[in-house]
Formats: sequence, C-alpha cells, structure tokens
Amino acid sequence: MKALVYHGPGERSWQEVPDPRIQEPTDAVVRVDAVTICGTDLHILKGDVPEVAPGRILGHEAVGTVTAVGAAVRNLTPGDRVLVSCISACGSCRFCRDGSYGQCLGGGGWILGHLIDGTQAEYVRVPFADHSTHKVPDGVTDGDMLMLADILPTSYEVGVLNGAVRPGDVVAIVGAGPIGLAAILTARLFSPSHIVSIDVADTRLEAARTFGADIVVNAGTQSARSVIDGLTGGLGADCAMEAVGTPGTFEDAVNLVRPGGHVANIGVHGAPATLHLEDIWIKNLTITTGLVDTYSTPTLIGLVAGRQLDTSAMITHRFTFDEFEDAYDVFSRAGQTGALKVLVAESK
Amino acid sequence: MKALVYHGPGERSWQEVPDPRIQEPTDAVVRVDAVTICGTDLHILKGDVPEVAPGRILGHEAVGTVTAVGAAVRNLTPGDRVLVSCISACGSCRFCRDGSYGQCLGGGGWILGHLIDGTQAEYVRVPFADHSTHKVPDGVTDGDMLMLADILPTSYEVGVLNGAVRPGDVVAIVGAGPIGLAAILTARLFSPSHIVSIDVADTRLEAARTFGADIVVNAGTQSARSVIDGLTGGLGADCAMEAVGTPGTFEDAVNLVRPGGHVANIGVHGAPATLHLEDIWIKNLTITTGLVDTYSTPTLIGLVAGRQLDTSAMITHRFTFDEFEDAYDVFSRAGQTGALKVLVAESK
Repeated sequence: MKALVYHGPGERSWQEVPDPRIQEPTDAVVRVDAVTICGTDLHILKGDVPEVAPGRILGHEAVGTVTAVGAAVRNLTPGDRVLVSCISACGSCRFCRDGSYGQCLGGGGWILGHLIDGTQAEYVRVPFADHSTHKVPDGVTDGDMLMLADILPTSYEVGVLNGAVRPGDVVAIVGAGPIGLAAILTARLFSPSHIVSIDVADTRLEAARTFGADIVVNAGTQSARSVIDGLTGGLGADCAMEAVGTPGTFEDAVNLVRPGGHVANIGVHGAPATLHLEDIWIKNLTITTGLVDTYSTPTLIGLVAGRQLDTSAMITHRFTFDEFEDAYDVFSRAGQTGALKVLVAESK
Repeated sequence: MKALVYHGPGERSWQEVPDPRIQEPTDAVVRVDAVTICGTDLHILKGDVPEVAPGRILGHEAVGTVTAVGAAVRNLTPGDRVLVSCISACGSCRFCRDGSYGQCLGGGGWILGHLIDGTQAEYVRVPFADHSTHKVPDGVTDGDMLMLADILPTSYEVGVLNGAVRPGDVVAIVGAGPIGLAAILTARLFSPSHIVSIDVADTRLEAARTFGADIVVNAGTQSARSVIDGLTGGLGADCAMEAVGTPGTFEDAVNLVRPGGHVANIGVHGAPATLHLEDIWIKNLTITTGLVDTYSTPTLIGLVAGRQLDTSAMITHRFTFDEFEDAYDVFSRAGQTGALKVLVAESK
C-alpha cells in the first residue's frame, strides 16, 4: 500500500510501504476511506515531537472500513464503517477505568502516527479496536465523521468542558484554526453570551464568524483585552481558551480572564511559558491542560448525527491519496490558502 | 491606643496612634483580645506588596470584643465576642453574591492591614461588620478561634478544596509553615492515603508529623519526586499544594503531580514562575490560584468547636502587646525559633 512517511524534521513522502496486518488479537485493520492532517502533524514535521521516529507513518484521524479483526475483537466485523479515534485505549488500566483514555498506561493513548504507524495510509492497524473505534451512524458523511476523530472532542473536552463554559459567559478563544473553530462551535452548546475569537488572520476570523463567534479581534491591530473589558465592565472573560500552542498566546489567554475565571489550554506546546504568579496568585484562576480523552466522542457523534453540531464548513480542501503531498503543502500554508481541514481520500 | 505601624520596607513600630471610630453605618469597632502575625505581613515588610502605604497599621487576623457598631449593623452588639476575618465583604456585589468574597468589588476583600488599618492594634475598625465577622462559639479559646481568621480557611479553600483532595489520594504539600500545616490538618478531612510534607527545616517537618503528615521529606537532602514515585508507581501525586510562595517551589509542585492531577497554589508570590507547557500540555493538569474567600469559615468554626479539627499545636509563642516587636522578631526568624503562629494579647 501507500502511506505518508515521516523521514525526520521537514522530510516526508507519500510512498510504497508494507501492508499492515493483525499483530495482536485485539487489533483491527481498517481500510482508510477518508483521512485528514492535524496541526500536530505539522509540529511533528518541525521536530517538536521528538518521540516520533523517522520511518513512521503519520496521522491519527480517519474514517474507514474494517477489513480484518483479531480473535479477541468482539464489537467489529469486516465491512463495518468506523471512526478511528486519535486516542487508542487499552480499556483496563487505571486511567482507562476512569475515562482518562488519553493517559492510557496499557499501551494506548495517542499512539497512532506518534509511537506506531498512523492513518495517513491506505490501510491502518488499529490496536485495542473495540475501545479505539466508533461505528459511523447511517446518514453521517465521511467528512462530518472525520471531524470527530480529534478536533471536536479535543476542543470540547480540553477547551469547553475543562474551561467550564456556562450560560451567559463571555468566552475568549485565542486562535481560529480548526481547533479554535471547533471550540467556538462546541462552546455554543452552553449558550455563552459572547464568544470572542482572536487571531491574526482575517480569513480565519471570517471562519470564526461562520462557526458562531459574535465578536472577532485581529490581534495584530486591536487589543483583545480592551474589547473584553468593554464587554465585562473591565473584569475580563469568564473563560479563555488557548488554541495556538505558543508561550505568547498562552500568556495572552491568562491575561484575558476575570478573577475566578478559567484558562483552558488546548494548544500543543514546544516551549515553556511565563506564569505571572505575582499577578494571578490572588485572582482565583483555574488553568487546565490536557490531551483529549475522547470520553465525549459518543455524545458528539450523536450531536453531529442529529444536526445539533454542523461541521460542514470545516473541510475547505479535498485531495486524492496521490495528491497527499499537495494536501500537506496547502494545509501547512493555511495563512495563505485559507485551509481549515483538508480531506484526503481514494477519490474526490 | 497603640498599634503596629508599617513605615516602609523593613520599618515597623509599636506606637501610639489615634483610636479608630465608626466611619460608616456598617462599621463596628472591636477591641482586640488576641491577634497574630501572618507570613503575608512579612511579605509586606519586604516590600512585596506595594499597595500597602507607609503609616498603615498591619494585621488581618483577630479575635475581639465589639465595643461600638454603626446604625446599619444588624447582627452585632457591643460585648459580642467575634472573629475578625481576614476578608471583609460588602455582601452585595457580583462576587459577594456568589461567595467569592475575596474578590469583593464593593470595597471589601483583603483590606485589613492592606488598604485600611488592620488588627495589630488595641482596637480595630471593621467595615461591613455583619459580613466580615463571625461570633465565637462558647468554649472556643481565643487562640483556637484566631486560627480561623486566615490560615484554616485559606489552606482549606485554596489548597484542599481547589486541589480536589479525595479519599485515597496521595497529597504532596510543599512548605510546612502555618499554611502548609493547616493544609495537612484540613486535607485529612478527606481521608487521603498519604500526606507528604516537604520543607527544608526539620523543625517544621516535625510539626508536619504532629498535624498529620505520614511522610516528611527534607528537600535539602532528599528528592520529593522519588519519594512520591515510590508511593505511586512512578505516576506522581494526585494533588500537590504550594504553600511557600517562590517560583521554585511552585515549579516543584507542578513537577510532583500525576497525569490528571491538581496543583493548588496557596502561596503569595512576588515573582513569575516558569510553566513547562512543553511537558504539561499533554498531562491533563488543573492548576489553581486563589485568595481565600472565607465561604468555609462557618463550617470550619463548627469543626473546631466540635473538636474535629485540633489546632492547639499551632500557637508556639505568646506575647503581650508591649512585646509586639519581639513577636515580629521571633516570627520572622521562624527557621531558628521554631515559631509557627504567635499570639499577641493584652496579657499572656
């Protein structure tokens, strides 16, 4: 088969590799019907995630069709259409037992396209298949389903739920890439009063309006704190989410919240930030970090299937497998291309 | 009357000052029967809290007897024995309405010995007296009650409750001064499996054992992380509390918790810390900061009155008002003197 292989910082290629096969009785092999690229893959290509070894097939999001299952797989049969979640879960370790699948100690967690070969391929081996896939409901497209592999549960769990968004809140979301946009979309489930989207790219801020931000701030030309002060009598936002992954945007998020507010970090970071404890020790802040656990994925699938969440504007570009390198090129230049999520499949 | 007056960094004196009087109809004047010194007062004397103006009477903890009340005070009458809480509360602003009294926008919050004259005096004016005092139950000593003015609610709310201590937890508490010791005492209310107290002074670690730490670590000679790894199979503590107020001890606390763990900052900080987002973005941490709100003070008074909390080992030294400067001297050299809390009163 062919797959997108990482060859060290800055180097990747769509190339011939051996087909995956069942290795453990809990494995499934899935034919990839639709796959996407994540900002995290770009972090890997920059060398920010050194655990990823050269030779690794990238990708941790897919929708596909089961082609083979190991002897211990109970819930899947060949032909089933499934979401391959970004998080694999052994299901039995201490963390899986309490729903913290992202922290799985039994060999799961974020492993696809990280510690084992991933989904940017024609086929993928999925470990712990019963706990690491979700069946696709009738009537849900591959594209809509694909948004449930990572960005929707990540934004919802690590952003909206960790950030404790409540009705009437003023919510600030720093970054309007796919994760920031999915945070806007899922924050609306809790009926905040205002969602303020902050970015430096006007194309992304236009997308933020599409997904439900009622106020957008181009941080290159406007002070987000002033805008939020105007909405809150100078107190600050109830919740600020960081959806970029740089020290500066994290520090911005901390600076945007009111006393008693929540700062939910969603971004993947490669460097430390400065925490101004001399200012915030007295402010009753709650700061959270997190890798998604995907405990919310069944709920979110139901919301998408029931059309309570509309992700249709998320996929901006479509490519065939043979165009995989073009897909990376367009996604990595999102500032110029306007790309949000790309969908790559056998055919457009 | 006489009072302990701050005269700028490093300068203080017990001296004659005008008697306080009722200024607002919601004020009370309280004769101070027992008062103590807080680590925060030492921060002020170092110049770490620049809002405190020279000429200010210090102190935000007292037990006393009401001598006068303003026309609008409903719940107090002269002769009542009261706890003067470190937090004053207007009772009607947005934050007071939800119990966030420490963040009061109506002129309360931490004001005593900070923005207005405090309790280290023979008499003190207490604003918003109905919301800023608690009656002393029969049978509770001045000394026991005094521990409820600040250290017990601070450690309980900002440490134990923010840190979400649960039965079976491994709890690490960095710092074994009065706040760290009160955190040990109140953490025990939730039946953790282990409380690991970490300090660099063996006298304080002995006190930590008295208050209920089952494991003590002198960080000068031993690695707290190794001790906690041994208790947790290398995962880390469920909760770590910072009870010192330096960047290094905060960073230590972050480094001690397991994936999914809580870091509760209790310390007063004068400088920023480094937050290693490149390590913790993936760890599902919850980091909290806070000034005490004192919403728990009635509960804690009940626990002390009912002897479910025993603070009797907390007061190590007693002084008369005339010895107030000696009290500061002994408290500020706690490492040598072994002082935990000092009690200052008209007579010993």
